[in-house]
Amino acid sequence: MNEVIWDIAHLAHVELYTPKLEESTKFFTDIMGMSVSGSENDSIYLRAYDDYEYHTLKLTANKYPGIGHFAWRARSPEALARRVEAIQASGLGIGWTEGDLGHGPAYRFKTPDGHFVEIYFETVKYKAGENDRSALKNTASKFPGRGMNVRRIDHLNLLAKDIPAFLDFQLNTLGGRLTEIIQFDEGPKALWFSVNSKSYELAVTEDHSGARGRLHHLTFAANSREEVLLAADIAIENGIFIETGPHKHAIQQTFFLYLYEPGGNRIEIANATARLILDPDYKTVVWTKEERARGQAWGLQTVKSFHLRGTPFIEDLE
Amino acid sequence: MNEVIWDIAHLAHVELYTPKLEESTKFFTDIMGMSVSGSENDSIYLRAYDDYEYHTLKLTANKYPGIGHFAWRARSPEALARRVEAIQASGLGIGWTEGDLGHGPAYRFKTPDGHFVEIYFETVKYKAGENDRSALKNTASKFPGRGMNVRRIDHLNLLAKDIPAFLDFQLNTLGGRLTEIIQFDEGPKALWFSVNSKSYELAVTEDHSGARGRLHHLTFAANSREEVLLAADIAIENGIFIETGPHKHAIQQTFFLYLYEPGGNRIEIANATARLILDPDYKTVVWTKEERARGQAWGLQTVKSFHLRGTPFIEDLE
Amino acid sequence: MNEVIWDIAHLAHVELYTPKLEESTKFFTDIMGMSVSGSENDSIYLRAYDDYEYHTLKLTANKYPGIGHFAWRARSPEALARRVEAIQASGLGIGWTEGDLGHGPAYRFKTPDGHFVEIYFETVKYKAGENDRSALKNTASKFPGRGMNVRRIDHLNLLAKDIPAFLDFQLNTLGGRLTEIIQFDEGPKALWFSVNSKSYELAVTEDHSGARGRLHHLTFAANSREEVLLAADIAIENGIFIETGPHKHAIQQTFFLYLYEPGGNRIEIANATARLILDPDYKTVVWTKEERARGQAWGLQTVKSFHLRGTPFIEDLE
Amino acid sequence: MNEVIWDIAHLAHVELYTPKLEESTKFFTDIMGMSVSGSENDSIYLRAYDDYEYHTLKLTANKYPGIGHFAWRARSPEALARRVEAIQASGLGIGWTEGDLGHGPAYRFKTPDGHFVEIYFETVKYKAGENDRSALKNTASKFPGRGMNVRRIDHLNLLAKDIPAFLDFQLNTLGGRLTEIIQFDEGPKALWFSVNSKSYELAVTEDHSGARGRLHHLTFAANSREEVLLAADIAIENGIFIETGPHKHAIQQTFFLYLYEPGGNRIEIANATARLILDPDYKTVVWTKEERARGQAWGLQTVKSFHLRGTPFIEDLE
Repeated sequence: MNEVIWDIAHLAHVELYTPKLEESTKFFTDIMGMSVSGSENDSIYLRAYDDYEYHTLKLTANKYPGIGHFAWRARSPEALARRVEAIQASGLGIGWTEGDLGHGPAYRFKTPDGHFVEIYFETVKYKAGENDRSALKNTASKFPGRGMNVRRIDHLNLLAKDIPAFLDFQLNTLGGRLTEIIQFDEGPKALWFSVNSKSYELAVTEDHSGARGRLHHLTFAANSREEVLLAADIAIENGIFIETGPHKHAIQQTFFLYLYEPGGNRIEIANATARLILDPDYKTVVWTKEERARGQAWGLQTVKSFHLRGTPFIEDLE
Repeated sequence: MNEVIWDIAHLAHVELYTPKLEESTKFFTDIMGMSVSGSENDSIYLRAYDDYEYHTLKLTANKYPGIGHFAWRARSPEALARRVEAIQASGLGIGWTEGDLGHGPAYRFKTPDGHFVEIYFETVKYKAGENDRSALKNTASKFPGRGMNVRRIDHLNLLAKDIPAFLDFQLNTLGGRLTEIIQFDEGPKALWFSVNSKSYELAVTEDHSGARGRLHHLTFAANSREEVLLAADIAIENGIFIETGPHKHAIQQTFFLYLYEPGGNRIEIANATARLILDPDYKTVVWTKEERARGQAWGLQTVKSFHLRGTPFIEDLE
Repeated sequence: MNEVIWDIAHLAHVELYTPKLEESTKFFTDIMGMSVSGSENDSIYLRAYDDYEYHTLKLTANKYPGIGHFAWRARSPEALARRVEAIQASGLGIGWTEGDLGHGPAYRFKTPDGHFVEIYFETVKYKAGENDRSALKNTASKFPGRGMNVRRIDHLNLLAKDIPAFLDFQLNTLGGRLTEIIQFDEGPKALWFSVNSKSYELAVTEDHSGARGRLHHLTFAANSREEVLLAADIAIENGIFIETGPHKHAIQQTFFLYLYEPGGNRIEIANATARLILDPDYKTVVWTKEERARGQAWGLQTVKSFHLRGTPFIEDLE
Repeated sequence: MNEVIWDIAHLAHVELYTPKLEESTKFFTDIMGMSVSGSENDSIYLRAYDDYEYHTLKLTANKYPGIGHFAWRARSPEALARRVEAIQASGLGIGWTEGDLGHGPAYRFKTPDGHFVEIYFETVKYKAGENDRSALKNTASKFPGRGMNVRRIDHLNLLAKDIPAFLDFQLNTLGGRLTEIIQFDEGPKALWFSVNSKSYELAVTEDHSGARGRLHHLTFAANSREEVLLAADIAIENGIFIETGPHKHAIQQTFFLYLYEPGGNRIEIANATARLILDPDYKTVVWTKEERARGQAWGLQTVKSFHLRGTPFIEDLE
């Protein structure tokens, strides 16, 4: 057994495309409780109150919803150099960019499914000002007391056609661990990757549609399950469609609530309770077809749209 | 044993005096999550999102903080008539008023300590509009998703010099039950009165200062203890002084958080968990001096200001 | 408008029939966290930790599951006398019984659907002993720290064929209020009755099966929604079938979890957050067919069995 | 800046000495909800329901309370070899042991204050049996539904005389980061070390007594703040002394409850909400004397015993 590669620190940010930039921004600020750090061209940069970087969400105006790119932050300049070398060797590398409002130089590459990804170390840490400095020195900015009060970016769930290819690339080129997998007789159907003590930061689910580079959902964490329940009330009070939840996933035990933001992308509000994976040789949890048929942790059947819907929508791609 | 008198439905509203009307209003709306129903002269009328009446809080500009009056809603016109007759017989009656923005004709009287009180039946129920109608038909208006999100007025705690006189008047003239009492060898020190299934709606604590007609605190209920904890964070993030809590009272088991609103009055955010008193011949719980010395439910010692501070402040009265 | 009759204090206890007395008892004690007060003949008497009476649940061995009887506690001896007179006048009266382990003389009668009911005032209050006395003087016995830790009996949901007849009898003969109703064009389908500040203590749902006197479910309250979520985990960890939930009912806003106890009866664990109905002229909330089609508060579709299943089972009655 | 050393995976277990082995064991099983994995000689091995190793707590009979030793698990055999080499170079190494019931060969060493420590990679993972297998495949054993239901070991807080020496040894020899520090003008007073995404796994506080090798407290995590509140009730219901809490630490934001177990050691039940430190170049948060004087997050003043009391007690050492 090789030593696990621990060169990536965490999921850093996600760029979402939205055909309704203004309404999407309003959703993430007024309903989710996030804040705008800045804007440039057709993009708005946002963060949750305890995200330490300049932004964890970049909203970019686009004809269709979907994912523009997402980014990993490396653990050190040396770790970044090691990963870039490995990515280049994989043939999926694109090249260095000068960075963005929220970070320094980043190396750009593709997932095996064609999603754009960046990796960087130099970052822009958020500096709270007079109006949003927290009374707690160890919080990035003050608790908003607005809407769902999400605390931080949690994880990203992509759709991909070739699950085995994604698995190979992620573990062997980028590092970290596969903590859970849905494994049917005919092959793997979904993957959950961890790069730190969280049980996952990236999930990949099979895209049955034949499309490439699509998004399943993006997730922000709330401090408690009670706040996820409150988020459900806030959703219905503001005409935000709840696809499913609140309920508990059997996989990863995430307490979830799935919403559609105005641009069409699926957004999850989640809480992991006190669960962490600290075991350095954690054995991947394997879920069979039979086990998946039992539904979520407490028996809820998965709604059909959850298996089919991704952004951009298939009809937009045709 | 006489039948208990059940003619009062609930604590209806409290008028607070504030030397900082604008800042107090901002506190109750932006921090507590309440809404303004209207205003008249030097008064602002507010309610929590599930208060069914036009207002449960009336803020009136005044040189000093304190309580203007508070009001009971009777269970029926007949119940109102019975109570007015009893109040008149007690010698504490003042007379009928034409009502206020939030209710119809009210009979005005005094507590034995000189606080002004009103009792009425005809009320103005709050009608939510386009912008604040709840998605849940059984909620008075929509969950605000703002600040502490208090749900409803909960109870009022007065200060009074002559505790036995208050006890006699409240039970024999107005009705309801005494659910808990602090009883020292030298006499009763504090009383908790219930007029419905809640364990109390009015509490009275001995005022050691010699002053009359003062307020100890006014309380609004949140939906969960988790929300009381969130309220504590919202308080410190917004420079609101926390006097004590969150913690659990041994008496009444209330999960409490005590704040000072900008006008100087003490405000409590509370949650009762699933506790109710449904027993029609509930035996009053008696707390001795020795038992009180043990502190709150989990051992927290009561802060000194909690025993001494009331509004108006003694120094303002001199 | 007549004055509302407030002669009933609360739902007192329910007798459940079970074909598996031992397993059902184990479920209510080990899983739900209730305690056995005593036993007699084929019956076990149980209570939740803050139920103030000797028992709120009587389990009786029987060939089939279902409800033996349920009981109301009157507000006073005078209130009891008034209700007995009214029941006798209704033609549904049966007569006085000598009482049971947990209460004194009770008047026995039938609902219009044939369920047996008792009403009494004289009761046996639970006296905690050395081992189960609570550290909090105002709690009936100590918090168990066992299983679901339910606090008190909450409400009972019956099935009945003739909903209008039930409505008339309950309001005009027993008193209290109808707080919510499902009203289709062809008539009422379900009723929620309140006799105190809780939003309901008795619900009645139309029985489509043609059977009489059946039970839909019996509910115990937990202190928080978080504890209802924990109860769901405790259920799956102990092989207890979850029919639906946790989720929030649109009707009455109850946060619910429905289980089948080993004897076959449906049991709900619920939390009402801080909701109470204190308005003495509360206007009944009416739900139409169209509104019901929208599912529960956050969109969950009601499972089919919830509409069809009652105890005793139809197949047992044939 | 050197790359941070990430060779330690997590705090693995703590050996507590207790003069009341039987009562301490009963406390950790019946009150805290932990389970016994096995026993050997005068030691009982325990774990919380989601601890993945054989044990996280070893209780050993001893004349006085205190800490026997604690252990780190390394991230890999290679990481273990690197750390052992560094420890040996530090002069604090003792030598290899054959392991224990719960793990393979371990290298034994001392902290600069004389606490015994072990580091190992080969472990014994807990295998749930018929009776304690969880319904959730990704949980180490089933949720107990007993007492406080703690989920996993969280962190250890030692007392030490020479804080700068501890700081140097921990960061430079073992690795990880210093996430928070109390820094008075005269020098550092307390340290919080992290070796993974948790904000700390080891804390060290200055021992003013002159004694060496003492324990401040050991902490287990519960899934929610609501469960910490329930734990407080369970404590008072079972005669367990609450030293302070529940409340929120300003430092690290931990929601805490401090208890004394029957053997005399201080035990904390804690919840971190959704807080994690994922920033790989996190800047240590520094607390001054002035800032510490403000009390805990919501203003609670730290009780005196919290500053003075450690195990073994000073009087036992004299």
